[in-house]
Amino acid sequence: MEMRAFGHLRSVTWARRCLLGAVRPISRTEAVPVEAAFGRVAASTLRAPRPVPSFARATWDGYAVRPRDTLRASARSPVRLRVVGEVFAEQRFARTVGPGEAVAIATGGAMPRGASGVVIFEEVRRAGTKIDVPHPVRPGDRVAPPGDDFPRGARLVARGAVLDPAALGAVAATGRRTVPCFARPVVAVVPNGNELVAPGGPSRPGAIYESNNATLSAVVAAYGGIPRLYPPVPDEPEVLRRTLAEALRRSDIVLATGGSSVGEHDLLPRVLPQLGRLLFHGIAVRPGKPTLAAAADRGLLLGLPGHPSSCLANSFWLVGPVLQRLARRPGPPWTDVAVRLGAGELEASPTLTTVVPLCLRGGRAYSTYHGSSSISSMAGAQGFALLPPGGRPVRAGQRVVGHWLPAPLGPPLAAFGSSLG
Amino acid sequence: MEMRAFGHLRSVTWARRCLLGAVRPISRTEAVPVEAAFGRVAASTLRAPRPVPSFARATWDGYAVRPRDTLRASARSPVRLRVVGEVFAEQRFARTVGPGEAVAIATGGAMPRGASGVVIFEEVRRAGTKIDVPHPVRPGDRVAPPGDDFPRGARLVARGAVLDPAALGAVAATGRRTVPCFARPVVAVVPNGNELVAPGGPSRPGAIYESNNATLSAVVAAYGGIPRLYPPVPDEPEVLRRTLAEALRRSDIVLATGGSSVGEHDLLPRVLPQLGRLLFHGIAVRPGKPTLAAAADRGLLLGLPGHPSSCLANSFWLVGPVLQRLARRPGPPWTDVAVRLGAGELEASPTLTTVVPLCLRGGRAYSTYHGSSSISSMAGAQGFALLPPGGRPVRAGQRVVGHWLPAPLGPPLAAFGSSLG
Repeated sequence: MEMRAFGHLRSVTWARRCLLGAVRPISRTEAVPVEAAFGRVAASTLRAPRPVPSFARATWDGYAVRPRDTLRASARSPVRLRVVGEVFAEQRFARTVGPGEAVAIATGGAMPRGASGVVIFEEVRRAGTKIDVPHPVRPGDRVAPPGDDFPRGARLVARGAVLDPAALGAVAATGRRTVPCFARPVVAVVPNGNELVAPGGPSRPGAIYESNNATLSAVVAAYGGIPRLYPPVPDEPEVLRRTLAEALRRSDIVLATGGSSVGEHDLLPRVLPQLGRLLFHGIAVRPGKPTLAAAADRGLLLGLPGHPSSCLANSFWLVGPVLQRLARRPGPPWTDVAVRLGAGELEASPTLTTVVPLCLRGGRAYSTYHGSSSISSMAGAQGFALLPPGGRPVRAGQRVVGHWLPAPLGPPLAAFGSSLG
Repeated sequence: MEMRAFGHLRSVTWARRCLLGAVRPISRTEAVPVEAAFGRVAASTLRAPRPVPSFARATWDGYAVRPRDTLRASARSPVRLRVVGEVFAEQRFARTVGPGEAVAIATGGAMPRGASGVVIFEEVRRAGTKIDVPHPVRPGDRVAPPGDDFPRGARLVARGAVLDPAALGAVAATGRRTVPCFARPVVAVVPNGNELVAPGGPSRPGAIYESNNATLSAVVAAYGGIPRLYPPVPDEPEVLRRTLAEALRRSDIVLATGGSSVGEHDLLPRVLPQLGRLLFHGIAVRPGKPTLAAAADRGLLLGLPGHPSSCLANSFWLVGPVLQRLARRPGPPWTDVAVRLGAGELEASPTLTTVVPLCLRGGRAYSTYHGSSSISSMAGAQGFALLPPGGRPVRAGQRVVGHWLPAPLGPPLAAFGSSLG
């Protein structure tokens, strides 16, 4: 068995910046039906093509009146008007309202010509076709003018914004059925290693079930991508090269897992340079050191360690930010909040940056970690700390800066407990 | 036009409790492929059917040795061993390691019988088939025992937990291809009103485009439900009744929008009692007063105001918690954090609880509201304040308790600014 040593190890900051500089935000767009566009990223700024509403409408159930008729109205001496018709939401009153006339109108109804104020149903006394109005009604009372919700040209949605319920309501209110959105990036996930068996398949002695597809598909989905999962590729350089080349053609980024270190059977360091320009191999981080990347014409290839928690830890500080940029999701890749360590002790490596996966409960952070080969090391992790090389240990009760992941990977607000507000 | 008055208006707290008591958490389950189960709610507790890993494995590239052979090793006087074979990840060494023998082993490789410790590749000097071990190797050094990740019977996933990347990795690592999850509840959304036109259709004078389907489908998706949208139903009681009855048969809950008030053309108060037991009609809240609910054998029916922002505001404090319980999503329906009002003034109604939609920026809250008929009143809203009837106004700079919605509807952590930690 032969091994080479890693060459120059890159810092976590350098490696992340390098990849963020190399990844191209997705440019494909698609028309997404309004009712399926929640959480998607808008690809165009949308403006109201016409005022919404397009007509003056009543904002209350009542009577549309001519304000000048009510100028002298008072509780003692109400003004009597004649109800000459009614307007429900979809109706229009055919003629102009004349002096001494009123039209019953429902909330949302189009104001009849001539009438410019509404008196509330409960405020008048009605007898037959007559109503008594007990106070003056001013023009515009209980009336939303045309364009009250959106004047023509008002911005409904900004390019790059994540679509929320109100934005989608605004789009629908202007009559649009679809929203132009950036396509969700397709993220290929390609495991390699003879020892790997896909879940559901029969086990073999010495074999292990492939689990990075499961964790990475979750991370990809969390950042708005579409995972495209490959079955484990055997340790044959040419098969791996062909598979990765195909994955690159059919996706926006390729995450290859396993065989990323410097051993004889670690194929990624041999194969990736055949597909693109090697950006780096080896990061001064624990876990996650055996990580490499290559930039091809069609997109990025990342080689991630096969150890499940190394792979997932990398996805917190390295892969997530890259996917976020690729998918054009706004906001910081994480939010720094210093909290106290709830238990145990976090120990820094003398030479490497240490990534400590953290969960947050009651405003205190707890490490979930106990070794890179165990996926249980990441159970419940919602963020991470980065301990600098040679740093002092962090003990229970001391403060540690947590880099808390964005939703849906990060902690719920309630986990911050009393450290909020 | 005839109108009845509302009867006894229910408080927001009563109304929410009433619905939470009436909604039945979903009981249907389905087997979801591991790679598609991120964010789903587990329907069963899963335990490891066998230890993971199933064999002792090396946690480092190196040489598997018999510790007793290395007892006297030192840098000055290394112990020389003979390399008699190698184990890559999927291989097994066929025989037992004998005295003076070592086996090259890659990270993850199955430890050969007889050897119980690993010396790191970089720590030995190799010449041909000989290696010099410069220090004693103890049993268990650089070896993960069987069950190191999960002993047999270890809990991988708890019933009711939301599945995260590590949990899915754990499930995959035990060889499972699917996870039993609670089904996503199907939520029917049924607009009614002659004035409504579905987006994409031709407009008519006096008509407006239906937009509550768009906002509610986003809210339903945010709480893990599957929206089942109906086109606008005309103002015909029998058509509406039939449509709602069909919706009730084919979904877990029905949200009907529009026609929820006390006017002659408000059909929901007439139709809902034909389909179930009326729970209430009218809530002492602004916006959102014309809201009603009925409990049928097959599920709940909610009648929501047609005004887009009233409807969406209701979905914050009333519909969301109900959907959350229906979908069995854990956690509080919102998180209370008091922040300062960034601008303007929040005015309480003298008689009703006032719902003020809020957005959060830089740790300050801003009202998005300017009238119930405008969906723009909810633009960017991420939570809300509840001002009690007759309460004092809240002015810019004063603190207000925001009820911040859970992700993905709530504010990103970064929006809390310096009020975190």
